[in-house]
Amino acid sequence: MKCMVDLCVIPIGQGVSVADEIAQCQRILARFDIDTKLHAYGTTLHGEWDEVFAAVKACHQELHEAGVTRLSSTLKVGTRTDKEQTFADKKQAVIDRLSKD
Amino acid sequence: MKCMVDLCVIPIGQGVSVADEIAQCQRILARFDIDTKLHAYGTTLHGEWDEVFAAVKACHQELHEAGVTRLSSTLKVGTRTDKEQTFADKKQAVIDRLSKD
Amino acid sequence: MKCMVDLCVIPIGQGVSVADEIAQCQRILARFDIDTKLHAYGTTLHGEWDEVFAAVKACHQELHEAGVTRLSSTLKVGTRTDKEQTFADKKQAVIDRLSKD
Amino acid sequence: MKCMVDLCVIPIGQGVSVADEIAQCQRILARFDIDTKLHAYGTTLHGEWDEVFAAVKACHQELHEAGVTRLSSTLKVGTRTDKEQTFADKKQAVIDRLSKD
Repeated sequence: MKCMVDLCVIPIGQGVSVADEIAQCQRILARFDIDTKLHAYGTTLHGEWDEVFAAVKACHQELHEAGVTRLSSTLKVGTRTDKEQTFADKKQAVIDRLSKD
Repeated sequence: MKCMVDLCVIPIGQGVSVADEIAQCQRILARFDIDTKLHAYGTTLHGEWDEVFAAVKACHQELHEAGVTRLSSTLKVGTRTDKEQTFADKKQAVIDRLSKD
Repeated sequence: MKCMVDLCVIPIGQGVSVADEIAQCQRILARFDIDTKLHAYGTTLHGEWDEVFAAVKACHQELHEAGVTRLSSTLKVGTRTDKEQTFADKKQAVIDRLSKD
Repeated sequence: MKCMVDLCVIPIGQGVSVADEIAQCQRILARFDIDTKLHAYGTTLHGEWDEVFAAVKACHQELHEAGVTRLSSTLKVGTRTDKEQTFADKKQAVIDRLSKD
């Protein structure tokens, strides 16, 4: 089962800037066999369910090992059985409709 | 690693009422070794990370097998290394502060 | 337009415990003409759209005024035109189905 | 108060494809004095709080007027008092750290 996941990890009790922790998550995610795309309020992941969630777990686990005491992440998790969609497919489906305006 | 997860599963392309699918998720979640608590806009889960996410995966997988074509879930995922908190602990920490008002 | 909102406010750059800030949100929300219900991973709000979002804005604004530098909230926002549902209605619709098992 | 909002609107009880509704949201959002950026699992909004939330409300209200019975949106809402950050700033802060690897 493939899934698309939008992941936003928030370290609690660290500084006001969380860019160090988010950069660390990017390095962790890059080790997994998934597609990733950083955006302004999270990172979108695409791949096999088990691989995607192994990556999410590694982010939590390794940030804790690096000294972050508390994390709260928000995820949107999409699955569908009718077709497989890439990041580009999903945006394009919307843009196609707008281009006819 | 223990986690607390707030899970809200939304079937897409089914009817306006999604109570059947949410009831089915409750039956699925009950098979796992996790604590669950249904609330008005989701279900909170608590337990070992792997068990909690096996339960979330089973919800997606089994709803698809039952004929739901598309799902989009929203999850909040909390982990912390300083202490373990139950559902009741988290609410009580807030209520304690309010009771001093 | 009525809405049901699940609100989880996370202060960033404060301490590991956020119960003080969540308690402060409860005090703020109580001033508005909305129903609220605290649960383990957020607070569910129900009422007229403008009143609910005035309450959410007040939480952000007043926590900032109290010295919190950065906030990230996660909201689920539900609206429907077919019927009005209270917190209890939504849970009951699921429980009714389970009670027939 | 400025805010950055990640918005994902899900129509319930419509078809499996929701691209028509998402395209309609893009047209609605474009009428407001806010910055918007479509990504694979939502749209990020940036601007004054009241303007951003007027845009979110218009999405719900106008999709209902167009015949959608039920909607559930997921929002992440970020505010901060220390500095103003654009979409590009937030991504760049992470990319800067990765570029030193």
